[in-house]
Amino acid sequence: MDQTKLERILSKMKEQGMPQMIISDPPAIFYLTGKWIHPGERLLALYLNVNGAHKLVINKLFPQEQDLGVELVWYDDVEDAVEILSGIVEHDKPIGIDKTWPARFLLRLQELGAGSRFLNGSLIVDSIRMIKDEWEQQLMREASIANDKIMEQIIPLVAKGYSEKELDVIIRDMYKQSGHSDVSFPPITAYGRSGADPHHMTDDMKGKHGDSVVLDIGGILNNYCSDMTRTVFIGEVSDKAREVYEIVKEAQARGIDAAKPGNRMCDVDLACRNYITEKGYGLYFTHRTGHSIGMEDHEFGDVSSSNKDIIQVGQCFSIEPGIYLLEEGIGVRIEDLVLITEDGCEVLNHFTKDLIVV
Amino acid sequence: MDQTKLERILSKMKEQGMPQMIISDPPAIFYLTGKWIHPGERLLALYLNVNGAHKLVINKLFPQEQDLGVELVWYDDVEDAVEILSGIVEHDKPIGIDKTWPARFLLRLQELGAGSRFLNGSLIVDSIRMIKDEWEQQLMREASIANDKIMEQIIPLVAKGYSEKELDVIIRDMYKQSGHSDVSFPPITAYGRSGADPHHMTDDMKGKHGDSVVLDIGGILNNYCSDMTRTVFIGEVSDKAREVYEIVKEAQARGIDAAKPGNRMCDVDLACRNYITEKGYGLYFTHRTGHSIGMEDHEFGDVSSSNKDIIQVGQCFSIEPGIYLLEEGIGVRIEDLVLITEDGCEVLNHFTKDLIVV
Repeated sequence: MDQTKLERILSKMKEQGMPQMIISDPPAIFYLTGKWIHPGERLLALYLNVNGAHKLVINKLFPQEQDLGVELVWYDDVEDAVEILSGIVEHDKPIGIDKTWPARFLLRLQELGAGSRFLNGSLIVDSIRMIKDEWEQQLMREASIANDKIMEQIIPLVAKGYSEKELDVIIRDMYKQSGHSDVSFPPITAYGRSGADPHHMTDDMKGKHGDSVVLDIGGILNNYCSDMTRTVFIGEVSDKAREVYEIVKEAQARGIDAAKPGNRMCDVDLACRNYITEKGYGLYFTHRTGHSIGMEDHEFGDVSSSNKDIIQVGQCFSIEPGIYLLEEGIGVRIEDLVLITEDGCEVLNHFTKDLIVV
Repeated sequence: MDQTKLERILSKMKEQGMPQMIISDPPAIFYLTGKWIHPGERLLALYLNVNGAHKLVINKLFPQEQDLGVELVWYDDVEDAVEILSGIVEHDKPIGIDKTWPARFLLRLQELGAGSRFLNGSLIVDSIRMIKDEWEQQLMREASIANDKIMEQIIPLVAKGYSEKELDVIIRDMYKQSGHSDVSFPPITAYGRSGADPHHMTDDMKGKHGDSVVLDIGGILNNYCSDMTRTVFIGEVSDKAREVYEIVKEAQARGIDAAKPGNRMCDVDLACRNYITEKGYGLYFTHRTGHSIGMEDHEFGDVSSSNKDIIQVGQCFSIEPGIYLLEEGIGVRIEDLVLITEDGCEVLNHFTKDLIVV
């Protein structure tokens, strides 16, 4: 286990009166151990105790995981893994639970009385993961540089008659071919009206003259995620669409200006939202402005009006305002990742935000 | 909502004294509504109440989901979705919770006191999903016929110098090209020693003369999954590997013979396991014999020594014994899906289990 990261977590646990905690999410376990273990439906639990009695409860199907710097507790498919875990836990003390732990495990642990109180323990790990160290910052930079290049390759394709599903295959292949382990989320290549639905599912639609096309893509490079959006137009752009585009672009620039230490996360959201509202489109910006990102595409710390947390150096998040006019079939979103520096932020994407007609 | 399925669930809820339940897993919601909704990290909760006050709590980002035959309760990204859900729940009564519901939601619901007891409610839905109706049985058949064909195409490739990662790309593409929406799990194409590790992760390894190759593949066709395994050999097969292969093949045949109504699920496991143990390899069959399958690759109802449930007509599960000799680098697994009929079972895979050298 990474002793620096572990010490930071244990110290926060002590501070917050949480003597023990279960970490189950594979990225959080990777963060601490440097090993990806994908247990599927099976239980995997890294048990941390401020007294140092850390253990990893793991299925015998993963015999290669011998060298993680933590005592291993094995179980097999016919054993009750939660009961084995319960045997390790201090029943008379509060216990932190990983936010992602499925109810089938948590309800059973509660039934066994393994803890005096059950608390969401992920805030501790996530607030530490939120601040990227130098090494992680470099990986975030490299991932976004690679993403810029893929965006550049994709844009000309949207006018070539590919359906969204065909583009999906092409894009996934581009990420694989350029050294990514995978996409960081299913790519969005939404033509016209589909782009006006911010969570449209990829279908057989093809682009047509005059369509706006929302391209929201990202990959996983050396375990760290990229995520960016550009909106381009096929053939021509209507006056209304151009107006909407320029409003979103300016809103996004204002969000970037607000992304600096000392401001609150909600200030970034408000900077985008207030401008869009001022221009009369507030009702059509139907989602939060962004999300933190790192080993996962969506990490703890969202850029929304309800997040009053102060922005800290080393945070990395997306700024992605949008306007969606479903009836007119116009959808525009522009997204960059930013990394918070001492005096503002570094924008990790360098691909142009000028309006492009292909 | 599908009224027949809904009535079966409500009737079981009444039987078991569970007046209300939260269903959150997208396949379970699809099973009832016929609609796939993928909320990502956001809360999606189908609330069922035996009094008929069913509701779906859903984020405003999914505006297309208007026509599900259930009252919709919307929330947006700045609202506390669990608090909104809590406002619907009868706090003084027990509540069933979906087995997959993440702890971040469940702990918050418990904090709000939204239920007199919190129980795993998935057993009710899963035990109904476990019995496939005629329509589902036909889809399971078609998915496995398609899978047989893909297996036939893949086998010759293992002797052609492709790495596991290259095969991964090729196989995923084959599923897409043949009408599948996706693979039903990451394909396993494990050469030699890697095949002797039952949960080996796909890497850059290529096959070499004399290797056993474990091919465990499946796809999703019309929302239903296939899953099969064959083990083939490159160039030649050692006497030891041939012995192991024939033992696994006979064990699997015995498992199929035991798969009939009235027997218990564990009888299928024991039929395979006893034979392998008799032949001296019991220690090297390190996993359960199989799992139920349907809209998901792994569904409720495993084929293991601990599952004493009586087998019922309409169940569909895998029978996949294996022997893994890590030191000798020999891994063999053979897997078919079976569908339980009145007097035994129908094997859904038809691809040969004779030993193949490529």
